[in-house]
Amino acid sequence: MTGQTASFHTMWRELRPLGRDASSGGYRRHAWTAADADCRAWFRAQAESRGLAYELDRNGNQWAWLGVRSYTEVAPGAAVVTGSHLDSVPDGGAFDGPLGVVSSFAALDELRRRGVEFTAPLALVNFGDEEGARFGLACVGSRLSAGALTPEDARELRDADGITLPQAMERAGYDPDAIGPDLDRLARIGAFVELHIEQGRALDLTGDRVGIASAIWPHGRWRFDFHGEANHAGTTRLEDRHDPMLSYARTVLAAREAARTAGALATFGKISVEPNGVNAIPSLVRGWLDSRAADQDILDTVVKEIERAAEESAARDGVDLRIVRESFTPVVEFGHALRDELGTLLARSGGGRPVPVLGTGAGHDAGILSASVPTAMLFVRNPTGVSHSPAETAAEDDCVAGVTALADVLEGLACT
Amino acid sequence: MTGQTASFHTMWRELRPLGRDASSGGYRRHAWTAADADCRAWFRAQAESRGLAYELDRNGNQWAWLGVRSYTEVAPGAAVVTGSHLDSVPDGGAFDGPLGVVSSFAALDELRRRGVEFTAPLALVNFGDEEGARFGLACVGSRLSAGALTPEDARELRDADGITLPQAMERAGYDPDAIGPDLDRLARIGAFVELHIEQGRALDLTGDRVGIASAIWPHGRWRFDFHGEANHAGTTRLEDRHDPMLSYARTVLAAREAARTAGALATFGKISVEPNGVNAIPSLVRGWLDSRAADQDILDTVVKEIERAAEESAARDGVDLRIVRESFTPVVEFGHALRDELGTLLARSGGGRPVPVLGTGAGHDAGILSASVPTAMLFVRNPTGVSHSPAETAAEDDCVAGVTALADVLEGLACT
Repeated sequence: MTGQTASFHTMWRELRPLGRDASSGGYRRHAWTAADADCRAWFRAQAESRGLAYELDRNGNQWAWLGVRSYTEVAPGAAVVTGSHLDSVPDGGAFDGPLGVVSSFAALDELRRRGVEFTAPLALVNFGDEEGARFGLACVGSRLSAGALTPEDARELRDADGITLPQAMERAGYDPDAIGPDLDRLARIGAFVELHIEQGRALDLTGDRVGIASAIWPHGRWRFDFHGEANHAGTTRLEDRHDPMLSYARTVLAAREAARTAGALATFGKISVEPNGVNAIPSLVRGWLDSRAADQDILDTVVKEIERAAEESAARDGVDLRIVRESFTPVVEFGHALRDELGTLLARSGGGRPVPVLGTGAGHDAGILSASVPTAMLFVRNPTGVSHSPAETAAEDDCVAGVTALADVLEGLACT
Repeated sequence: MTGQTASFHTMWRELRPLGRDASSGGYRRHAWTAADADCRAWFRAQAESRGLAYELDRNGNQWAWLGVRSYTEVAPGAAVVTGSHLDSVPDGGAFDGPLGVVSSFAALDELRRRGVEFTAPLALVNFGDEEGARFGLACVGSRLSAGALTPEDARELRDADGITLPQAMERAGYDPDAIGPDLDRLARIGAFVELHIEQGRALDLTGDRVGIASAIWPHGRWRFDFHGEANHAGTTRLEDRHDPMLSYARTVLAAREAARTAGALATFGKISVEPNGVNAIPSLVRGWLDSRAADQDILDTVVKEIERAAEESAARDGVDLRIVRESFTPVVEFGHALRDELGTLLARSGGGRPVPVLGTGAGHDAGILSASVPTAMLFVRNPTGVSHSPAETAAEDDCVAGVTALADVLEGLACT
């Protein structure tokens, strides 16, 4: 085992049990929970064990600085930053997020082994609440910092138990009054690179271990509230029913068909039903649509078609429909300058073989930051394409290749 | 206000706030909860305020005896019993169950006002856990007593939080070790009459206040577990998905169509999804089918067709399907002797107008008891047909007519 592999291994073994559900085998590292606190403590310990200056920002994002004690010491546009997130979707996999954080520390270890000299301040970062699993909005930590989410709107966020984001932060020992834009901090960053497991099989199909992101598809979440009439399932004649489950079911199928036709993605993965009794026709079926497409026009077409189908279906059942767009992120095209620089650096270290450049449907903190900071992403091969699932996996060799690539990139950006 | 109306009014007012949810306006009187305990305390107080002998049976059903101190003093087949249940479905209405219990007390008050002499022991009863809202099986109290549910099977029942029936009983102060068949008690009963709000509009359509039950349709609950593959909703190609929400949606629509074709009822009103995240393709969609029909052949045909459609749909999505029949109750034809006797008694007191006889799709404790005890049911008009909903309603005049009819029946059965 090389030093690099050992460092990666040790960190991976430490993280593995944190927030893991014994029955599903998946991770439940939701924002501001005990599992999240364990992950945060781990990050801080990793930073301090390497002699990095640990810094918590106003939005609960964690930073570990090399070369300076705080971002305030960094000249505008001077810092090189890498990192990702440690939180998870419900029953998520081990790699989505943590691979980027672990690889950041491992890449630093590798660069120290190489004996390189840093000419720019380097920071490793763990963004809070990237998945939005608890409060329904993704990338809360980076959105707040970039000013893409106002503190007022953030304070309105509630989890399934009605606990607000400020209440959750306070219970976790953080100060919810402090949240807000952190533009001065972001202005110090000259390059942010996020390494992430690929959430698809493009690299597996091309036979590459590592790729570079071109763009993040525009994507959003829409809530469909179908309001019907609760009634007894065993006595109400079919013709007297206003059953919102029927409207919902037709909408689920219409969404799939609309996405298929347009070459986009549309998914109903979350549902809430009232009263949710076996012998009761529901009074309310609330379904959440996640939809994404390669460009805005396609996405608009798909969502409009799904909305039309839902309205038609609700009218047919005598059901009231309300559609709420809960979040939306326009297309993110990563800047060509940094993307091309990464391509050049990796082609050089890889003996000239060009590194594939690929788009993704998944949102990331890198996408949020790209509006104010030069940003790029590296993807590591996912042999099954499975993500957001306990079955998510990556080969160890590929993870190590990811660490090497990240180290090569950081060396090129921060050591010249 | 007549004495009869006043007695009914007072009881109704006392019961109204118990277990009522302020936001939905519906009732959450689930077995062995605090709301259930309040209802039970109310029953006991009503019994004792009328000088009746209160008796709790081994399965948590409550009895109030007139003329004897306990069922053990009653000769085989001698007792006349009336009653219903006080528990509710999630966000249920005020009438389903409580109308029968309140009417029992009000009918006794009416008979005392009439000054009749009882020649048979009379009992009023409140059966426990009729709706099955908490543990998923309806009529647990009467099933246990009739031997239609073994104590071993009952002890395996769990609520949504994993609490077993014995744990719930124990926390409510009852002895779960005592549960089991109570056939000696049932053998003392010569006639059981349950008054219930109609859960449909048959009486409204014929213009009658009160009707007599002919039969309870065969009915059952089936659980459909669609096991797919959790994955990222934003990155997984449609053709790589195994999305169980699609199979579920097609099955919901197939169920409606099968029921419509056969003139039966089929409803998917309860669902559970894992991981239930907006950006995750589900790993599991679990849907519950409630189906009922006028006879067994029709029901078999409908359920078989739904199962076939579910299997075909699951195969199409590459999803594994498991179907479990969670409960089943064959058709209950109420005995003609008692039913005809009720018809004669009510026609006499109603000036000769025949009382309509109607079937129902809803299960009742009367249906369970009918296997071992002569049993009949009275229905009170429901102007909207709505039931299992906060909107369930009945006109006061119709409720009072129901009390009068029940008093007439009890007088005919217990005072001659």
